[in-house]
Amino acid sequence: MAVNETEHRAMTRALELAARGPRGVNPQVGAVILSPTGEVLAEGWHHGAGTPHAEVDALSKLAPGAARGATAVVTLEPCNHTGRTGPCAVALQEAGIARVIYALDDPGVTSGGGAVRLRNAGVSVEAGEQAEAAHLLIDGWLTAQRLGRPHVTVKWAQSLDGRAAADDGSSQWITGAEARADVHRRRAASDAIVVGTGTVLADDPALTARDGDVLLPDQPVPVVVGTRRTPEDAALRRHPREPLFYETADLRAVLADLHTRGIQRVFIEGGPTLASAFIAAGLFDRVLAYIAPVLLGGSRVALADVGVSSIDQAHRLTVDEWVPLGADLLAIAHPAVENEGVV
Amino acid sequence: MAVNETEHRAMTRALELAARGPRGVNPQVGAVILSPTGEVLAEGWHHGAGTPHAEVDALSKLAPGAARGATAVVTLEPCNHTGRTGPCAVALQEAGIARVIYALDDPGVTSGGGAVRLRNAGVSVEAGEQAEAAHLLIDGWLTAQRLGRPHVTVKWAQSLDGRAAADDGSSQWITGAEARADVHRRRAASDAIVVGTGTVLADDPALTARDGDVLLPDQPVPVVVGTRRTPEDAALRRHPREPLFYETADLRAVLADLHTRGIQRVFIEGGPTLASAFIAAGLFDRVLAYIAPVLLGGSRVALADVGVSSIDQAHRLTVDEWVPLGADLLAIAHPAVENEGVV
Repeated sequence: MAVNETEHRAMTRALELAARGPRGVNPQVGAVILSPTGEVLAEGWHHGAGTPHAEVDALSKLAPGAARGATAVVTLEPCNHTGRTGPCAVALQEAGIARVIYALDDPGVTSGGGAVRLRNAGVSVEAGEQAEAAHLLIDGWLTAQRLGRPHVTVKWAQSLDGRAAADDGSSQWITGAEARADVHRRRAASDAIVVGTGTVLADDPALTARDGDVLLPDQPVPVVVGTRRTPEDAALRRHPREPLFYETADLRAVLADLHTRGIQRVFIEGGPTLASAFIAAGLFDRVLAYIAPVLLGGSRVALADVGVSSIDQAHRLTVDEWVPLGADLLAIAHPAVENEGVV
Repeated sequence: MAVNETEHRAMTRALELAARGPRGVNPQVGAVILSPTGEVLAEGWHHGAGTPHAEVDALSKLAPGAARGATAVVTLEPCNHTGRTGPCAVALQEAGIARVIYALDDPGVTSGGGAVRLRNAGVSVEAGEQAEAAHLLIDGWLTAQRLGRPHVTVKWAQSLDGRAAADDGSSQWITGAEARADVHRRRAASDAIVVGTGTVLADDPALTARDGDVLLPDQPVPVVVGTRRTPEDAALRRHPREPLFYETADLRAVLADLHTRGIQRVFIEGGPTLASAFIAAGLFDRVLAYIAPVLLGGSRVALADVGVSSIDQAHRLTVDEWVPLGADLLAIAHPAVENEGVV
């Protein structure tokens, strides 16, 4: 039994509802309850960890018994697991839902199995409706689930010969305006920007995502890693998001904590010591190297010790794209052998 | 009065003849003498410094008086200057040539003016026939004339982060086979490959241009710069061309000497110290950076001190092309402000 046009439209709506929820520890999920004749009875979405799941949110808007014989259209397979909330599969069953349409299978080991439970209870279940769009919506969450940690992008700007600054520390500007604007757009698509205390002390960065002087709507959380103290008047303390400070050199512990906070995508912005440490530890999934057609030489390398002493230990990358940005070039690459995400 | 079809074909032939001569201190020039009815009476070309110019070479193949009323088709403006040979303009006149067609104006301060002298003597002169092809043929010579030194290409291979080797010195291979083949093709188009003694001692390079294990037909002269001694059994001593050794750190003096030897295009192959010294001195016209998608970190930078202490002193480049070569990328660039060629 296939999905009809009304149900298809309801899934498109459920995906819109899902996007209203926050990116975080839980995936974004939306739900629409349709009457047997195809009218929308209720809508719901997941508002964040500790709040009801989307299906339950939708059902809660109906009078008892109103969902009897209805169809639930949900962007993710209803869960089969009691956490901070009860299993949605049971809630749907108890509400008398006769049919469930969902987009993506639940990848969770403990939460999966909802479809089987529903089918065993005699509910008609259709899986895979608009799965691609649903996947795209929670791509960051799925990746973090798979890796067991946030997805890590290490970004740096360098001269053609691999320097982040001239010998006296001056670096404004190595790359041009187009490359810098690209950095801000990509920052805005991350959940956190991570810098070392050395960079905080040397550059006092704002760590905001901007279009010119204007803040972009999405702002990543600023994260500072290192044992030196961040000054009270540091620019990042005026960031719209509350900064996180980790007084440690244990990068796996930092990522593990960010993961528990629902941070799915982090942007490592440097400086060279921190960026190199992430690479040396194999804790990176993507590299963004903005290369300016400039020769600087000298001691201020963009990457320092990445844990390679012989050529056979080199971190080999696969370049996804070489992107010209004005006079500069952006190399977008990932490890040629995928880094293991074991934290 | 325009150039007719027979004269056009004669110029094409003269360009072929020119290419038979050696690239060197003098430009390559070819000449064809046509009878008034358009038959080829004689052909000639310049065989190298100290030998007759192309026009005189062609005339020498004719009996006295045989060129009377004939047309000389020459790839370069006949010279007006007495050097190791007399002025060609006079020789043509004395042979009774009635018409001269040439491709390129003579750019020499002392040798130019031949066309004016011929016209003043009542000879019909046409300039500019197939000038572009003639320019291409002696492009290296014209550039060296303009610069007052050979054209300098600084070439290096590097990891994305600007290293020429891993910390233990291992570097085979950072770049892939396509990039390495490209280097050999470009070597073959140079007149000399220049290396420092450090590279000779560390890598014992052959400095030949090869296709796999096969030597390419054109081999640049190997040139070693530096005060350390090249071992008697060094591979470059078995090069098909006699190596040149300069026991000096004075790069301008090296280029000046190469210029007097007719070397028009040099390829600086490293190591990092020598390449950096050429860049620091502003003695470069082109950069070829072969960038491999590899991260190495560590101390073995591809460029070391290029004379930049602050960002405003950066050597800014203009990239002519970013060329993908397999997994690698070749940056072909030139100084954004042209380097002065004063030796």
